[in-house]
This record gives sequence, C-alpha cells and structure tokens, in this order.
Amino acid sequence: MRIVIPIFDGFTALDAVGPYEVLRMLPESDVVFAAGAPGPCTDSQGRLGLLATHSFEDVAEADVLVVPGGPGVDAHTADERLLDWIRRIHATTTWTTSVCTGSLLLGAAGLLDGLEATTHWRAVDALESYGAVYTARRVVEQPGGIVTAAGVSSGIDMALRLAELIAGRVAAEAFQLLIEYDPQPPFDSGSYAKASQEAKDYLAARPRRTAHGAPPASARSVK
Amino acid sequence: MRIVIPIFDGFTALDAVGPYEVLRMLPESDVVFAAGAPGPCTDSQGRLGLLATHSFEDVAEADVLVVPGGPGVDAHTADERLLDWIRRIHATTTWTTSVCTGSLLLGAAGLLDGLEATTHWRAVDALESYGAVYTARRVVEQPGGIVTAAGVSSGIDMALRLAELIAGRVAAEAFQLLIEYDPQPPFDSGSYAKASQEAKDYLAARPRRTAHGAPPASARSVK
Repeated sequence: MRIVIPIFDGFTALDAVGPYEVLRMLPESDVVFAAGAPGPCTDSQGRLGLLATHSFEDVAEADVLVVPGGPGVDAHTADERLLDWIRRIHATTTWTTSVCTGSLLLGAAGLLDGLEATTHWRAVDALESYGAVYTARRVVEQPGGIVTAAGVSSGIDMALRLAELIAGRVAAEAFQLLIEYDPQPPFDSGSYAKASQEAKDYLAARPRRTAHGAPPASARSVK
Repeated sequence: MRIVIPIFDGFTALDAVGPYEVLRMLPESDVVFAAGAPGPCTDSQGRLGLLATHSFEDVAEADVLVVPGGPGVDAHTADERLLDWIRRIHATTTWTTSVCTGSLLLGAAGLLDGLEATTHWRAVDALESYGAVYTARRVVEQPGGIVTAAGVSSGIDMALRLAELIAGRVAAEAFQLLIEYDPQPPFDSGSYAKASQEAKDYLAARPRRTAHGAPPASARSVK
C-alpha cells in the first residue's frame, strides 16, 4: 500500500499531515513525500519545512495519491512537470485524492472535468473553471476513485473514509481512536455557511497569501 | 507573539502541525520549531521529516510553548537538557501547553504536580506518575497558563481556544473558518469511552511503537 503525498513550496502543512497521520497506520503501508527534488519544502507561512523523501521522477506509481493545497498551488496550475506526473500517478492509483486547493491541481491535470468535487470555500470558482461541479460537502467521492476534500482540516475526515474503504470499518475506527479524533471545537465557525459576518469581515481585512482573493460568488451566496 | 514548538525524533507530526496551523495565524506571530540542533527531526513513523529552525539554546523565551507528544517522548522523560529548557521557557511564557503525550514532558519537568491535566488515553498512568490529576476532558486549562490537550488531533481544539484567549473570539472563529474546521468524522470512535471493543482489539493486536503499552486501568474502566 504505497501512499504518495506531493509537496511544494507554499503548501499548507495540515492538508498533508492530517491525512498522513491516518493513512500511515494502514497495514503494510509506506508513505512517500515527493517534490521537485528531495529535501525541504517550505509551507505557506514560510516557517515550517517538511522534507520530500523523493523527487517526482523517483515515484512512478501509487495506490493512494493525496494532493495537498495551499497558496503555493497558484504557482503550479500550469506546471506541466507536476501536472503530467499527477496524470501518470493517477493512471496507477486506486484512490486519487486532494485536500483543500489541491483539487485545483487535479483539475488542472484534467482529472475533474464533469465530476463533482469540493475544495476550500475560497476556491470554488477556480475549481469550477476546470469543469468540475462544486459540491458543498466535506468529502466528495466520485467514480474512478477520485475523492476531494474541502479546506485544510477536512483531510482528516477524508482519510478516515479512505481507511474504511481500504482496510475496513474496524481498522478505520481504531485509527480514529489512536489519533483521539473526537472533535470538540470551541465554536461552530468551521464552514462558510456557519461562520458569523464578523469572522468573515476579520478575514477580509487580513493580508492575503493567495490569489484566491474574495470568496467566490457561490460561497458568498451561502448565508 | 512568539510561539515555540519543540520537536524530537519520534514526535507525532499532527500533535505539532495541528496547533501550528491555527496559532501561525495570530497577528504578528512568529513560530519557531526548536530541537537539539537545527535540521530535520523524524516523526514516529520514520517517514516524515520536519525541520527544526533553532536549537534549544537558540530559544530563551516564548509567549506560547506547545509541546507535542509521540512515542519519542519516552526517550526524553529523563533528558535534563530538554526538561531544563522547558522549565526555563515556561518561566517566560503566558501559555505553556502540550498535546497528547507532550504532557509527560511537562510532567517530567515538574510543571504538572498537583494540577489537573490530560493526555493520550494510553498514557494516563504515566501522566499521574508525575503528580498530575488526570481529567478526561479534551482540553484542560489550569492556573498559571498551563493547558494540556488529549491525544493527537485535540491540539486543534486547544489551539482554537488559545487563539480566543490571545486574540479574541472573532479572530479565533475566523481561523476556524480558514482551516474549514467543521469536523464530520465518518464514525464516532474518537475516544476510549465511545470506541467499540472491536476497534480496541484491533489496536491491541497491532505492533506498538511506544512504551505506553496496554491502556491504563483508568482508561480500561471506561466502557
């Protein structure tokens, strides 16, 4: 069970590490972090460095591909080296997945055309520009083994579902217990539909690190 | 607002990265990953390498200390270099916190004696051996700014609470929206009290990477 997670400068660390902590527990699994070259990739904040264990060319196949997102995605939506690699790996996978704006890389690689998919709430219009049909669910499964997750932390939920599909429900429940994933967020502000206008205004006033500026019309319309 | 996260070989990556993704959004914050020496630390699985930006000696103070856990904790509960550093940093912090078995390092440093605290469900007896009073809550706040979180994923909940205490509720709600933390785990198996016997048996049959072998009596007694 080979799990491959591509990383790049400007990725969001939790997009990758959330699913990693679940999928690494799959029996006889091996996890590979692939990048342009082995060595450190720096996250969206510029403070966290995660080591790529392999270059893209070192990795020819995978059972599970997990593509994280982050502001760095913008620099790669026309990066044919990465997109071609994603297409080639996808041809070998059972599950091709994304977290957050990682879906834009799947879209740019041509894998989401006509499919239902999800992404970070700020990137809905960008996702639909690749022919995907945005679906406001946390995890969206499609024929062909393509699974997309919403923003950042949703990768944990997605990975637990993948674990169930791969190793069965008891194993997946055991993994949930081991990471003690019994979420008790102190507020109920985790989706665009639920968040207060004050919280949205706070974000609107912050400097942006991504080209996905204003919330897309389809997110704005959710009150 | 300086946030310091110590890491070490055998740490659990999500313990560190979950809180990181929230706390890095605090206004004018800087996050430092400290270790025995700058450079990579390898996680509990041996597949993920996270870069320490500083050595312990490079870091003399912090506003927030977040100590992650993981199987590697066992190698450090008598590591006076690390424990003395934790004590010295704690003397400068507003918030001294832990995720998962990171609480055992706070305990070994003498910071939890007589306090209520939490930890991973497998490490309850070890926590109490340091004079702490185990409290089966996901996040436990104590006088003196000491906050402990339960296993692995609970660090996200803790960090949102810290963000509220530091930057106010609207900011914390905005951070929750930005990481789209609207958890929808596919099962309800995230705590020892809720998990099925089958899931516990599955874990019991797996090879262990930690000295915290069997569930402690206090966890076993929860059905």
